[in-house]
Amino acid sequence: MNQSPNNTELVTLKQRWYRIIFEADTVAGKRFDVILLWLILLSVLVVMAESVTTLNEKYSTLLRIAEWVFTIIFTIEYVVRIYVSPKPLRYILSFWGLVDLLSTLPTYFSLFYHGARYLLVIRSFRLMRIFRVLRLTQFLNEAKQLSHALKSSGAKIIVFFGVILGIVILMGTVMYIIEGPEHGYTSIPRGIYWAIVTLTTVGYGDITPQTVIGQFLSSILMILGYAVIAVPTGIVTVEMSNRSKERTCSRCGNKNNDNDARYCKICSEPLDLSFHE
Amino acid sequence: MNQSPNNTELVTLKQRWYRIIFEADTVAGKRFDVILLWLILLSVLVVMAESVTTLNEKYSTLLRIAEWVFTIIFTIEYVVRIYVSPKPLRYILSFWGLVDLLSTLPTYFSLFYHGARYLLVIRSFRLMRIFRVLRLTQFLNEAKQLSHALKSSGAKIIVFFGVILGIVILMGTVMYIIEGPEHGYTSIPRGIYWAIVTLTTVGYGDITPQTVIGQFLSSILMILGYAVIAVPTGIVTVEMSNRSKERTCSRCGNKNNDNDARYCKICSEPLDLSFHE
Amino acid sequence: MNQSPNNTELVTLKQRWYRIIFEADTVAGKRFDVILLWLILLSVLVVMAESVTTLNEKYSTLLRIAEWVFTIIFTIEYVVRIYVSPKPLRYILSFWGLVDLLSTLPTYFSLFYHGARYLLVIRSFRLMRIFRVLRLTQFLNEAKQLSHALKSSGAKIIVFFGVILGIVILMGTVMYIIEGPEHGYTSIPRGIYWAIVTLTTVGYGDITPQTVIGQFLSSILMILGYAVIAVPTGIVTVEMSNRSKERTCSRCGNKNNDNDARYCKICSEPLDLSFHE
Amino acid sequence: MNQSPNNTELVTLKQRWYRIIFEADTVAGKRFDVILLWLILLSVLVVMAESVTTLNEKYSTLLRIAEWVFTIIFTIEYVVRIYVSPKPLRYILSFWGLVDLLSTLPTYFSLFYHGARYLLVIRSFRLMRIFRVLRLTQFLNEAKQLSHALKSSGAKIIVFFGVILGIVILMGTVMYIIEGPEHGYTSIPRGIYWAIVTLTTVGYGDITPQTVIGQFLSSILMILGYAVIAVPTGIVTVEMSNRSKERTCSRCGNKNNDNDARYCKICSEPLDLSFHE
Repeated sequence: MNQSPNNTELVTLKQRWYRIIFEADTVAGKRFDVILLWLILLSVLVVMAESVTTLNEKYSTLLRIAEWVFTIIFTIEYVVRIYVSPKPLRYILSFWGLVDLLSTLPTYFSLFYHGARYLLVIRSFRLMRIFRVLRLTQFLNEAKQLSHALKSSGAKIIVFFGVILGIVILMGTVMYIIEGPEHGYTSIPRGIYWAIVTLTTVGYGDITPQTVIGQFLSSILMILGYAVIAVPTGIVTVEMSNRSKERTCSRCGNKNNDNDARYCKICSEPLDLSFHE
Repeated sequence: MNQSPNNTELVTLKQRWYRIIFEADTVAGKRFDVILLWLILLSVLVVMAESVTTLNEKYSTLLRIAEWVFTIIFTIEYVVRIYVSPKPLRYILSFWGLVDLLSTLPTYFSLFYHGARYLLVIRSFRLMRIFRVLRLTQFLNEAKQLSHALKSSGAKIIVFFGVILGIVILMGTVMYIIEGPEHGYTSIPRGIYWAIVTLTTVGYGDITPQTVIGQFLSSILMILGYAVIAVPTGIVTVEMSNRSKERTCSRCGNKNNDNDARYCKICSEPLDLSFHE
Repeated sequence: MNQSPNNTELVTLKQRWYRIIFEADTVAGKRFDVILLWLILLSVLVVMAESVTTLNEKYSTLLRIAEWVFTIIFTIEYVVRIYVSPKPLRYILSFWGLVDLLSTLPTYFSLFYHGARYLLVIRSFRLMRIFRVLRLTQFLNEAKQLSHALKSSGAKIIVFFGVILGIVILMGTVMYIIEGPEHGYTSIPRGIYWAIVTLTTVGYGDITPQTVIGQFLSSILMILGYAVIAVPTGIVTVEMSNRSKERTCSRCGNKNNDNDARYCKICSEPLDLSFHE
Repeated sequence: MNQSPNNTELVTLKQRWYRIIFEADTVAGKRFDVILLWLILLSVLVVMAESVTTLNEKYSTLLRIAEWVFTIIFTIEYVVRIYVSPKPLRYILSFWGLVDLLSTLPTYFSLFYHGARYLLVIRSFRLMRIFRVLRLTQFLNEAKQLSHALKSSGAKIIVFFGVILGIVILMGTVMYIIEGPEHGYTSIPRGIYWAIVTLTTVGYGDITPQTVIGQFLSSILMILGYAVIAVPTGIVTVEMSNRSKERTCSRCGNKNNDNDARYCKICSEPLDLSFHE
């Protein structure tokens, strides 16, 4: 009450900008996020174009300018975000804060150390901002459900990957011994690389078994890899199915209940909740 | 009543032909569709044969004639369709009307511009008419169910592909930096192409990692691609399972209820319908 | 009663032999089938060995003799089967009767026409006899269940493969136009072959896209193939799940009821049967 | 009571050590297992490093010493295990006892017979000890559930692999006849190897069909392999789903009941148990 009206106005302005920049429940906020999304997409395309030799030779200056324009825009955005944030330090140290910072720094670094090509990789993290932008839609809820389903079947999946790792190390070693360096299996790690390429049914063909025993063992590994995919699929499907059942109202059949709802949002029927850790 | 009998006859003739050409609930209509299906199949085979050098050299004239015969038949069919249709414009502008038109045009264009080889691609759309012909069977209902199941799990699938896209861009960039142009990763887009080839377990082997770090990172990408297939599978399976339960009568067990039925068509029991958007 | 004891004896002998050769519910019948299984396996291995140049050069005579010994044994078996069968003609014209005949003929043919190498392929059909031998176990019931589950989801699977076929023909044509014969896409059928290799995630790498547009389109095809596998998996899983529920007794929980049982074989509870065509 | 106090003390010491070494329900036992796990991991990495030519040339002596140190530690561990075990012979002849023994022997053998490189493969078995170490966590229960689910769908999976084997042998033979040795199909076993590479969608590309018929047949094999993966996935998913339902309490919804529990561990409700063999 005893604040100067000017100060109050500033606070309200900051709050309004906070809502636009950080949230997406207003028309302006939505528009801001969509524009930002397009800018990020374009900036990533520019980084990609710079890596293509033919494009880089032709449009070198243009791409350079574009990169700087995007960097400056994102820097301003970053500074504004800190300014309007009620708890600036919390934003700076948050995951998205760090991604925002690392999305602008490499361009500045490339001024001093020209060979900063390797730092460009951090740029591609920017694209993850797509998901922040999508937060405004129903998608985040779905993402939460997906990651929840994966998390609650985590122990089973770890056991599964433990067995896969064991098979892959064993097969890589055996093939190193059987085929040997003369057929491309130059070391045990390389044998393991081959075993992963084979078990996952990728099958580059850069290393292939040449001996009869090697081909026989690889055949077994292939069939194993082909069949064993059923296991994680089964795990995830059952988990999703259970989750879907919990969220379905037994009275009105509404399936769109929130993840943490205890009562159906259509007919208030209590939902059949299971024990979650 | 005050129509000339001639005119009435014409209208009835048009209606009868409409039923034969556009619908498939009569013997004549079924026969028409099956013959058309065979003609389309043959015409596509002719287009394919023209692309095979050895065949084209030997039977050049024969294939040419066949192409023209098919084109003329399809043109007549198209004109008749417009004529018998009660709302010709609606047919012309419909999806199938455009496909029918585009299935005949390229041959005429090739008269004026000989290098119209590139327009042949539109020809292959004709094959989609197979599904129009199949409309006469139970298949369309199944197709509707499949596409419905895919649509209602659409948001989840978009989130999934968003994550996949992010991983692929990140990995493509990292591999471009690690392996570099000397190992085939000549640009970031090419790195992304490699990442997609690897994640989807296609594994052509046209670009393969040569460095130890590169092979280690690809191994992780492969295992990820191998396991992550469980997610869309789980999504679609759960969706289909829910749909299948809704359509199953809880009293008599009949599973063949229509997609929009509210009561079992065998025993009139109300079906357990969920909220659909 | 008025049959000569000799004749009766012969009939009983025939019946006893019929039980041993055609059925497997006696100790002798089981033993006969297991021995036959081993003989078939060995004979197939001999055919395989003959195709390996190094083995054929070393053990040419031995393999030849072995082939003839197996052929004579199987011929005798075939003749005995006809003799002991109560309806010989029905056996001869049955699927297994034809397979039994075709498993012996190629060797005899190779006497007159030495280049009968191509007829050897019929030999490998013999291995299907493994399943006849396995009939004596619980496996046939499982096989029936599997094929039943596949059959009742047949319409959905046909729609699915129709869509796949359409995509593959379209993509093969487009890639033939884009990449052209200079990059290995020498004809539309070859383009379709490439599209199938890519969509099914096999990815030989014998034909790979070289242009940027080609690589972009293939990426889409790969992701499609990678995700779309969820559809048949979902179809089959739901079908199997429904089938499994029908066979499970709601009172005692026994799951091992036969495929055509109407009552639980443990507690006589009526089973929840659905409408099957 | 009439035991000398010294002897009693020894027994208690042995029992305490037994608990530390063989079990993991105490702090010391957990620590022991975790340290052992790291030692095993390191020792496997040393074996791997020895196989890499560049590393072996540089750090030959270091790796040698490390190998001997690990071998001596594991030998001491093995002797202690025998000593503290109440039934030493049972441990020695158990699976883990044999793995423990075979994890140390190859190093000693390499003293007498230098070319013992081939025996190193037994070393990689050591890694399976990871699962013994993980026994202390909840993971073993999950592993039991997974292997149980696989076991109870065993008969179905055997039928499935029987069919796969039949297809692969038939296709391998047919392709050997069609393509012949000039296209890489040098023998029937090699044709079968190719068929497995293709059906499992691995697709190395070391052998590829060159003729039109060959490419057509491979296309069918690829689509088959692509679609048929739905079958084991369906089997395992249904089995896991049934198992998950049995373990879920119908009153309180608790899903974490043990595999052999007859009553819910949260609310004592009897669980819906099915007949297991």
